[in-house]
Amino acid sequence: MSTLLIKHADILTLDADNSILKNSSLAIQNKQIVAIGDIAPDFSADEIIDAKNHVALPGFFNAHTHAAMTLLRGSAEDLPLERWFNEGIWRTESALQEDDVYWGAALAACEMIRSGTVAFSDHYFYMHNVARVAQEAGMKALLAWCVFGSDFASEMGPTTLALTEEFVAEFQNSAGGRIQTMLGPHSPYISAERALRDAANVAHKLGVGCHIHVSESSEQVANSYKQHGKSPVAYLNALGIFDQPSIAAHAIYIDDADIEILRAKNVTVAACPKTHLKLAMKTTRIVDLLNAGVNVALGTDGAASNNDLDMSQVTRLAALLQKHDTGDATVLPSMQALKLATRQGARAMGFSKSGVIQVGADADLILINLDKPHLTPRHDLAANVVHSAQGSDVNYAIVDGQVLLRKGELTTLDEKKIMREAETRGIRMAQSNLAQTQKYQS
Amino acid sequence: MSTLLIKHADILTLDADNSILKNSSLAIQNKQIVAIGDIAPDFSADEIIDAKNHVALPGFFNAHTHAAMTLLRGSAEDLPLERWFNEGIWRTESALQEDDVYWGAALAACEMIRSGTVAFSDHYFYMHNVARVAQEAGMKALLAWCVFGSDFASEMGPTTLALTEEFVAEFQNSAGGRIQTMLGPHSPYISAERALRDAANVAHKLGVGCHIHVSESSEQVANSYKQHGKSPVAYLNALGIFDQPSIAAHAIYIDDADIEILRAKNVTVAACPKTHLKLAMKTTRIVDLLNAGVNVALGTDGAASNNDLDMSQVTRLAALLQKHDTGDATVLPSMQALKLATRQGARAMGFSKSGVIQVGADADLILINLDKPHLTPRHDLAANVVHSAQGSDVNYAIVDGQVLLRKGELTTLDEKKIMREAETRGIRMAQSNLAQTQKYQS
Repeated sequence: MSTLLIKHADILTLDADNSILKNSSLAIQNKQIVAIGDIAPDFSADEIIDAKNHVALPGFFNAHTHAAMTLLRGSAEDLPLERWFNEGIWRTESALQEDDVYWGAALAACEMIRSGTVAFSDHYFYMHNVARVAQEAGMKALLAWCVFGSDFASEMGPTTLALTEEFVAEFQNSAGGRIQTMLGPHSPYISAERALRDAANVAHKLGVGCHIHVSESSEQVANSYKQHGKSPVAYLNALGIFDQPSIAAHAIYIDDADIEILRAKNVTVAACPKTHLKLAMKTTRIVDLLNAGVNVALGTDGAASNNDLDMSQVTRLAALLQKHDTGDATVLPSMQALKLATRQGARAMGFSKSGVIQVGADADLILINLDKPHLTPRHDLAANVVHSAQGSDVNYAIVDGQVLLRKGELTTLDEKKIMREAETRGIRMAQSNLAQTQKYQS
Repeated sequence: MSTLLIKHADILTLDADNSILKNSSLAIQNKQIVAIGDIAPDFSADEIIDAKNHVALPGFFNAHTHAAMTLLRGSAEDLPLERWFNEGIWRTESALQEDDVYWGAALAACEMIRSGTVAFSDHYFYMHNVARVAQEAGMKALLAWCVFGSDFASEMGPTTLALTEEFVAEFQNSAGGRIQTMLGPHSPYISAERALRDAANVAHKLGVGCHIHVSESSEQVANSYKQHGKSPVAYLNALGIFDQPSIAAHAIYIDDADIEILRAKNVTVAACPKTHLKLAMKTTRIVDLLNAGVNVALGTDGAASNNDLDMSQVTRLAALLQKHDTGDATVLPSMQALKLATRQGARAMGFSKSGVIQVGADADLILINLDKPHLTPRHDLAANVVHSAQGSDVNYAIVDGQVLLRKGELTTLDEKKIMREAETRGIRMAQSNLAQTQKYQS
């Protein structure tokens, strides 16, 4: 088991006291942080990182994404939500091949590691390919195979609830515990009631939660009341979807009764502020949810709407947008925003020992290079990280003690090959959309 | 006179047709773009840049900043506007020494060039020091020496209208035309009516515009009606402040009559969306202003509120925030957002031949390295630049044909020395604030 010593780092621990350690050391062994500050002189390190001019903090946990949608980045721009779905995404995804998911997720992994993400909660198709990426990349992941379960839309490839049940059985707690799973019923507005009920039963049987899209538009809420006499959150709760700790993505159009359900059932809300802005969806009421005691985490959503998978951007936008929407510049101070993107994401994804720098915690952390003009002076390290840093300032990313990014270079992935494959596959899918569009128009 | 040849670039020209050229060439001579596409075989280049896998576009024009406030980056966090000013900025700036402006602006120049800004419109004190920075850095700049002209607040150092008049006389059109000037009366809410009238007279005499803060809060507007019976925009217009083409920074709380004044008087509105979000100020109605025919440009404001001087961030936020606030995902598409940050800024700052890539235009351009996972695939170059690129993806920055950033390295500034000086001076100023705060509290 390898050991790692990090020296001369300033450390944002993100612990309960928001402790900041200056010019300190971290010892890592057996995937865990075993000492901070004074390191025993006989600690023998396989690798020593001199982190002078770097700040160490827990790596980012991306609580809601569709990693392989990197292939569609920039393919459906400046469209309202409905047209983005119907003319952009659905049509392009109809050309999705099983292997595309591997290459798209691999591209996502390159981008995520480079910008400091150590774990991602993915909701997509052909998820054994995403598991393979997480395994090879060395990242942590919570994987949910999306099932439409719709009476009117066809499934993507071979997807059935039975198949996703097999997926959970095979991959839950795999890759040395780095891979966790959930079920992935798409949403209350696409999935049929029967399918949601079945998913809740299987989730109960397997002891895993559900990762599901909830309340993204006011139309969805109005339709839910019309069809079910309940809000989407209340409807899903009545069907048992939230009986295990689950992830509700977006949850924009919710009321106080919904918030109480989310709190009581220990549901994490994954807010995706950049996607919400881009598609003009309004956004998750993060401050209200936090005040009510709900666990809020942050996600990028897919790159088809978010255009990147950079959690530092999302963390900043979460803080900025909450200040804007509430009219209160004091809400979501930097340290709290960072906790949403780290500890609270780790909790949502079942990595309960991660997202904090303390002895006994999992060694899932990043080092940001502060020796840059835009990170000078160092009045406030947390503010510099949240409001000034770029994803590219991440110089090291470490998961379970393994260095995945060293001096800005990926250690586990063949980036050039992945970019070439992803470019080719992304262009092929967009051309298929174009061909369909021309057919519809002629 | 040096010549430069750029080969194999994809080019976002930002011309009237939004032309995009693939794998093309650019020849630069006498500070200008002299050929695009087919370059005469006898064109003799002092330097050839192989721009394979790069996109070329006009560099960013930062239309409103206070460059030297980089020294205060992160020093007044998560505060509402009034407390940010009173407890943070004013108190810290009372320790500002003349030389601090040089080092703070030099730090800003490092950061700006690195993130693709070729020109900045600065509004601050001791502006001969900022002129020195622009001169040494090779950047273009529009410089306005801030005058409070207040009956109740003391000036910063030796500032008087007479002194700023001398500054304009000395620096207008200096540095080979790279430096332009304006007058800098602070705002209608701080500057006395007499001072504004005097500034308008001097501006008229010198043939320069005014760069001024306008309508940043609803209180400012209410007070203006109470004191002058007019909105801030109408009041400034009545005093003659807008009689030369001028820059109104922020202009958030404006009505349709204000918009008509801004259009008729050819005033550029400089929107600063990141600062507006951070300080919960609401934001400039960019779409309404554009629809009315007003020239809108983008700025970062100072790093004390914006936390960086990265125009790629501001361009993205302008687009995202307008989509959010209008509820319309189709507004401010990427190509238009880029024009706000380039052509329209250049126009505001008096560099009428810049902000576009065409034969005869000033050679003020940047090359962004696309060979990155987060910029793959290349479905839409403008979207990749606006919604996916980081400031650090800028690999070359060129002003008047001079390469200021080459392969990610600054060519004109001693970055390490500047960062050291800025760190020391920023910390000194913050400690002065702390000492004053402790005195008030004891």
